[in-house]
Amino acid sequence: MVLITGIVFTPICTIRSPFRDPRDMPVQPVGARGVRGTVELDPACAAGLKDLSGFSRIILLYHFHRSEGYALEVVPFLDRAPHGIFTTRAPRRPNAIGLSILKLVAVDGATLTVEDVDILDGTPVLDIKPYVPAFDAYLDERSGWLAAAPDDPRTVRSDGRFC
Amino acid sequence: MVLITGIVFTPICTIRSPFRDPRDMPVQPVGARGVRGTVELDPACAAGLKDLSGFSRIILLYHFHRSEGYALEVVPFLDRAPHGIFTTRAPRRPNAIGLSILKLVAVDGATLTVEDVDILDGTPVLDIKPYVPAFDAYLDERSGWLAAAPDDPRTVRSDGRFC
Repeated sequence: MVLITGIVFTPICTIRSPFRDPRDMPVQPVGARGVRGTVELDPACAAGLKDLSGFSRIILLYHFHRSEGYALEVVPFLDRAPHGIFTTRAPRRPNAIGLSILKLVAVDGATLTVEDVDILDGTPVLDIKPYVPAFDAYLDERSGWLAAAPDDPRTVRSDGRFC
Repeated sequence: MVLITGIVFTPICTIRSPFRDPRDMPVQPVGARGVRGTVELDPACAAGLKDLSGFSRIILLYHFHRSEGYALEVVPFLDRAPHGIFTTRAPRRPNAIGLSILKLVAVDGATLTVEDVDILDGTPVLDIKPYVPAFDAYLDERSGWLAAAPDDPRTVRSDGRFC
């Protein structure tokens, strides 16, 4: 028997971004090109960022803190038909963890300046990982329903459906 | 004032893999080509996987459940020098969340068969997201210390340093 219990994570900081409302914001970093934000860690954690400036992108994991509950099927922002929650990046999911691959503009002490920010201001940050093309870039992959989705992730904006 | 408190996540299932010991296993999916595993969700959650078979890769987020504590600087498996924890994928991190981009071989009800599994058997799974090249594949990015790391992620195996 495998016993599964809750795991407690404590955010390492919050992100600052221009988006104060979960409605009418980009739904992916490709729709937020050039949008800047900052990730300000506790100065005591600056050593954890040693050598990060050698990387040009980071993977940010964060808590979709404005989402509550979930449904197993959702109509995502980019389509009109319902899909399984695990085939979407929608924020209302069993564990509301978000993932954005951001451009790393600068590292100044314990503060990161990032771009392509599609994240709500004040969102709790869980983890920062380096983006490594040799680990993370796969080009010839099938994109399921997204390949034929009617809406363009570069221009679509969110609405209130997942708040 | 921003109040940051702990967030409780409940794993959606555990992963089955051939690796029973955190020592002597692949350190990245590129070192685990063809290694199969299964992700068995509760059958009641099968609807969450609707249309997932249209995607050829998934992003798996999971809890590094065998890691305890963390250090801000670590000597990662692929190098001999210390680097900031947030510039590595090492499992001992402030929030011990792992990320692997796996090949999706089959979806059968609530069970996924996956390949390129670099994950310990019994690891609690937090989230499944579709891998979307248009969102996730960036080729021309700098890889910091990893670009000059002496060891090859395709062949290096783990040791006990993060257990």
